[in-house]
Amino acid sequence: MTYKLVLLRHGESEWNAKNLFTGWVDVALSEKGTEEAKRGGALLVEADVKPDVVHTSLLRRAIMTANLALDAADRHWIPVRRSWRLNERHYGALQGKNKKETLAEFGEEQFMTWRRSYDVPPPEIELGSEYSQDADPRYESAPVVRTEALKNVLERALPYWEDAIVPDLRDGKTVLVAAHGNSLRALVKHLDGVSDEAIAGLNIPTGIPLVYELDESLKPVTPGGTYLDPDAAKDAIAAVANQGR
Amino acid sequence: MTYKLVLLRHGESEWNAKNLFTGWVDVALSEKGTEEAKRGGALLVEADVKPDVVHTSLLRRAIMTANLALDAADRHWIPVRRSWRLNERHYGALQGKNKKETLAEFGEEQFMTWRRSYDVPPPEIELGSEYSQDADPRYESAPVVRTEALKNVLERALPYWEDAIVPDLRDGKTVLVAAHGNSLRALVKHLDGVSDEAIAGLNIPTGIPLVYELDESLKPVTPGGTYLDPDAAKDAIAAVANQGR
Repeated sequence: MTYKLVLLRHGESEWNAKNLFTGWVDVALSEKGTEEAKRGGALLVEADVKPDVVHTSLLRRAIMTANLALDAADRHWIPVRRSWRLNERHYGALQGKNKKETLAEFGEEQFMTWRRSYDVPPPEIELGSEYSQDADPRYESAPVVRTEALKNVLERALPYWEDAIVPDLRDGKTVLVAAHGNSLRALVKHLDGVSDEAIAGLNIPTGIPLVYELDESLKPVTPGGTYLDPDAAKDAIAAVANQGR
Repeated sequence: MTYKLVLLRHGESEWNAKNLFTGWVDVALSEKGTEEAKRGGALLVEADVKPDVVHTSLLRRAIMTANLALDAADRHWIPVRRSWRLNERHYGALQGKNKKETLAEFGEEQFMTWRRSYDVPPPEIELGSEYSQDADPRYESAPVVRTEALKNVLERALPYWEDAIVPDLRDGKTVLVAAHGNSLRALVKHLDGVSDEAIAGLNIPTGIPLVYELDESLKPVTPGGTYLDPDAAKDAIAAVANQGR
């Protein structure tokens, strides 16, 4: 008996296209992102992967990616669960800032520390400011988040993994998680036992389903899982690594 | 203390546009239907109606209407529940047939009996035929349905009303139900105590939210509820009544 988990990073958003730090700012998919999401659904069909339940963040770029991919895969009717715990990393005071300008302003070392260090968060966002979510009704029952390192993302995502996703897997369901670069990196770190150092070099491309077969102890049968379009994934991973350049 | 319920009939589907009996056939929204759904969301914003939870059928025209309306209303992140019990009436052997041709073939009386009688269902669909859903995985845990009169729709929708929707209302949530002409007529018949005869003359227009304020005993404070765009609703109701002509 093995379990099947499918991770799907949302397609390009309007702010990805503009090279801005997004975090919890709730921007829409770009046209390219819309197409990526549909193609993600087509890849599920080609591989005969049929999600029985979908978990998403509370952000529309992940929600819309799930909606479009599932519609393309004729699985739009499956149960839906959502949680802020699957949200993108909160980028603190960097939310809304241009990545290239941030790189120029703070220098390569600081920039890469904020982007890729495991436990150094960006500066906290000012509460009540334009890109803070402290008054957003969708986070009423969540703690106020002002910035996060990847470590913080893992810490808040794990309870959801254990309490909501694992029970679906144990029920024998094929589980789709439609989320974000960093919340998915956190899950992959947990699943594959990636070290705090090595996770810095791990990028997840947009719109290409990453399928994990998990054994009885929920360890990956194939470490790192399997992308449904491995060639496109390889190219896209290289592109993500070069963001901000 | 009152409760707030919002009913939303899906926007025009590809088969509405072609004047075909659709029932449980899972057709997509037309472009016009997509626009109607977005406008439905805009009407929610204008009226400051904020759904806290959405219930949909298992059919993509209702699911996509909910997705688009909620995205337009910035409420895409709310919890989602789905059930076959909110599906459109199963139109039996008429599914896939042209309404005008059916009218010509069977005559006005038979046609109107199938469309508007409370308890006379169309002929049963042949199992395994093109427009039957008996092998569709989404209905695995539902009984096999081969045809329905409105009475049957009410009988299968009511348990979901009681077990899933009423608890959300009692929790004080604003509940959005995104569904179909006949499953919504069934709910309205129940809520407003419409007689078996009078329900024949009750039409629900597409894409215009119908808001019910319900008292402690879940009776409408204003019988018939309130359309968020009453003028457009009036015109659309007249148009629905003339379908097949």
